[in-house]
Amino acid sequence: MTLTGDLFIAGERRSSGQRFRAYDPAKGAEIDDIDFAGASEADVDDACAAAEAAFLPYSTKPLAERAAFLEAIADEIEALGDALVERACRESGLPAARITGERGRTAGQLRLFAREVRDGAWQKLRIDHADPQRTPPKPDLRLRTVAVGPVAVFGASNFPLAFSTAGGDTASALAAGCPVVVKGHPAHPGTSELIATAIGRAVERTGMPKGVFSLVNITSNDVAGKLVSDPRIQAVGFTGSRAGGEALMKIAAARPRPIPVYAEMSAINPVILMPHALKARGDALAKAYVGSMAMGAGQFCTNPGLVLGLAGPELDAFSQAAAEALSRQAAQVMLTDGIHKAFEAGKEKLAASPYVEKVAEGAEPAGPTQGRAALFTVAGKDFLADPVHLHEVFGVSSVLVRCADLDELKSVLTELEGQLTATIQVDEGDYADSKALIPVLERTVGRILANGWPTGVEVAHSMVHGGPYPATSDGRTTSVGTLAIERFVRPVAYQDLPEALLPDALREGGQGGVLSRIDGAWTL
Amino acid sequence: MTLTGDLFIAGERRSSGQRFRAYDPAKGAEIDDIDFAGASEADVDDACAAAEAAFLPYSTKPLAERAAFLEAIADEIEALGDALVERACRESGLPAARITGERGRTAGQLRLFAREVRDGAWQKLRIDHADPQRTPPKPDLRLRTVAVGPVAVFGASNFPLAFSTAGGDTASALAAGCPVVVKGHPAHPGTSELIATAIGRAVERTGMPKGVFSLVNITSNDVAGKLVSDPRIQAVGFTGSRAGGEALMKIAAARPRPIPVYAEMSAINPVILMPHALKARGDALAKAYVGSMAMGAGQFCTNPGLVLGLAGPELDAFSQAAAEALSRQAAQVMLTDGIHKAFEAGKEKLAASPYVEKVAEGAEPAGPTQGRAALFTVAGKDFLADPVHLHEVFGVSSVLVRCADLDELKSVLTELEGQLTATIQVDEGDYADSKALIPVLERTVGRILANGWPTGVEVAHSMVHGGPYPATSDGRTTSVGTLAIERFVRPVAYQDLPEALLPDALREGGQGGVLSRIDGAWTL
Repeated sequence: MTLTGDLFIAGERRSSGQRFRAYDPAKGAEIDDIDFAGASEADVDDACAAAEAAFLPYSTKPLAERAAFLEAIADEIEALGDALVERACRESGLPAARITGERGRTAGQLRLFAREVRDGAWQKLRIDHADPQRTPPKPDLRLRTVAVGPVAVFGASNFPLAFSTAGGDTASALAAGCPVVVKGHPAHPGTSELIATAIGRAVERTGMPKGVFSLVNITSNDVAGKLVSDPRIQAVGFTGSRAGGEALMKIAAARPRPIPVYAEMSAINPVILMPHALKARGDALAKAYVGSMAMGAGQFCTNPGLVLGLAGPELDAFSQAAAEALSRQAAQVMLTDGIHKAFEAGKEKLAASPYVEKVAEGAEPAGPTQGRAALFTVAGKDFLADPVHLHEVFGVSSVLVRCADLDELKSVLTELEGQLTATIQVDEGDYADSKALIPVLERTVGRILANGWPTGVEVAHSMVHGGPYPATSDGRTTSVGTLAIERFVRPVAYQDLPEALLPDALREGGQGGVLSRIDGAWTL
Repeated sequence: MTLTGDLFIAGERRSSGQRFRAYDPAKGAEIDDIDFAGASEADVDDACAAAEAAFLPYSTKPLAERAAFLEAIADEIEALGDALVERACRESGLPAARITGERGRTAGQLRLFAREVRDGAWQKLRIDHADPQRTPPKPDLRLRTVAVGPVAVFGASNFPLAFSTAGGDTASALAAGCPVVVKGHPAHPGTSELIATAIGRAVERTGMPKGVFSLVNITSNDVAGKLVSDPRIQAVGFTGSRAGGEALMKIAAARPRPIPVYAEMSAINPVILMPHALKARGDALAKAYVGSMAMGAGQFCTNPGLVLGLAGPELDAFSQAAAEALSRQAAQVMLTDGIHKAFEAGKEKLAASPYVEKVAEGAEPAGPTQGRAALFTVAGKDFLADPVHLHEVFGVSSVLVRCADLDELKSVLTELEGQLTATIQVDEGDYADSKALIPVLERTVGRILANGWPTGVEVAHSMVHGGPYPATSDGRTTSVGTLAIERFVRPVAYQDLPEALLPDALREGGQGGVLSRIDGAWTL
């Protein structure tokens, strides 16, 4: 299919006054095949009005139809074929194998949410029967969750499929029954348009109201703010920088009626090398560390930006092995010119810290927009002396912290800000000491790993891709995995309603095999 | 027992430089038997430090011990006997029957949360087993919720037991595993001290860490702000005015690491008189309406402050019957001098609206701090003309809205702010029209009632005492009922952790009958 560059508002393609172009980071140049439209305030208003108009028809569709819609989106995305992979690679600088894998993840995620919609337990169906004999009489009370309303989704640049237009935020909001207005990421407008086309086809094919989905590219912060402050928008999903997320939080909090912002923002994802593990397999750990750090040009929210170990010959050997692996690491094309510049600036700021030493650098860039890998080190006692050590450097960059002993390591961990992940490399001999670290990590992170690397984020029932501030704006949730659906619903109680006025799922015996709680007892 | 007037910080009684006295609203005078201490910033700091120190020991106690602690609090509150009832009546102006009922509710609530702790489903135990054969290999992922950390609770004046020192917020936070620092309400300091004594005894009796509970009376907004901005506090529970709740929200949002505020603030709780019901039993509805409105001197968050019906002879008759009932309504002692003055000012503001007509007034006050009941009316077409009609008047005051037709009634409902409740009075002939109102109400309120009155709030699994802004600051939750525990936990995922490092409840077969989700399937 041919790209039009138009906005996609409730099934209608529309051009606008503002134009911009996509960028090919590998070539370091604009892609001049097409001009993309940037939305005006009126366009955003129309998208929100369409989402509001679609809310009731969409949220009251039978769950089976909602699930079929999600599956149809997955099918239509796959049906885009090579055109999608080619465009996404060109706009992101990411290799085809990675984009192909991400497409599978994106379709699989939509299908998982379709199954979750059918499972239905997220409705939290509860019934407490009346007891008219009690003093005072006990009323009949029933509870379920309802969709919150239209949701604004701000896609990320680093996963142009899985965390963007039809990514986890969109999938979980649609699963919850909420229409979605996506603010497309300007780093991959052609990719977004292809995905919007697929969603549009799924809308038509499954007879959903057209306003259930709109894509607006927005080139001005003011217009983006308008989307968040629009009174019809009831929640915001965002993946991106801390500055961006915090800006949206401020706008949402200043509304006459504040709304939740689920912003996944910033993390350095500590990895702890426990002594026995380090001794037994330091060399292998060092290589795997560099592999995880360099994956996708280091542009993962879960990139291991911090490694902590106990100073000594084993850690020196680890450092040397990591330095060797890193020095062989080719420079990689980064997503955008802006991200590349921020990466270079971040490394410079780190290197300028009087406490930090540069251990190694990767191969020199061989083309535009390429980031050169870097490994730094700092002593545990100095780590907390300069907040620059705490800041995420988005790209292939990491800091090795040499701690004097486990107490110092624990005190560094205790002082860290909220993180998406923490990883411990452990052997059996480390279990006793590691056990004491778990409660510290539980207070700071969303996911604790052992003997692995944080860069893979499985889409599963048990995944938490979240964590305390500033990893996310709201540590009570996750943006990956089925629990993400709970972000876009809220509970409503029904007291003494006649059967005729109750939602079907709350009628006597109407739970249809969905997990429910009847008079306190769980039942299937 | 004799009151000391001291602060209660982690089991230690402590006086302070600032003193204040309790107030007897029925007499309109200070209670001069004792001076109460007001906390300094240092006192608040100590309470937070003790809560933080207690967090790990408390949150890692076996659930059975945590449940026994909650039950011990209930026992110790009951063991306070008549002294508690007498003091609470004297400080609140509420009658003994009401306070005795509220004590039962408070103890029952603690015992319900004890059962909920044992039920354990709120831990959201999930296990997704590994699949090493998959490409890429699928990791082992497990999930549970953990307590968020120390919680600050701001008690309410209108329920000196059930929504105060050992009320719903404290009970649900303790149930979740969070130490609590209560900012005692200055309207009932003696009542709070008695309750703190009971909790202290339960702490001793069940061997809990002392910092799990502190009570600080605070007489300055600055010191109260210090409690919310203390970095050790991880969530806030509040019941009170919109101005108060919004002030806490601002402080919490401005922290370097923002935290959730669960503020239950303001509602006018619309009641809809559907035509058949109005025709069949208008007179009985009018009497019940005034009864609900006047309960507890109108000082219920769920007071029916708004009644909507279709203009015509039936509504006129309803209005007249309500006016008659109201004119016989005795003036009642209100909780505090400040609340009484705000009530009088609120009625005056309403009466000053050019669209509003006063229908009836209750009997004249016969003593200090007594509020005189009032009923107003406004035409549906004028209701939205002045925002003053939307504002809660806390006390025995309500507005009857005369709508031209169902469309006008629906448009008034659509424009309402978020509410705790909405009630429809329906007969069978009203079902078809009422059905269309349910989706409107679901977007606006936390609880929908039929053929009842909103002032009773059952403590149950299916209760939602919450609702969209400004009914509460966070419509995703409830402050009454077992679902309230979810406010004070957050999910953590564990990836590939060796059995030795996993929490007991996530070990293979370690779920002990608690509702869990294993590889996607719900199991008990």
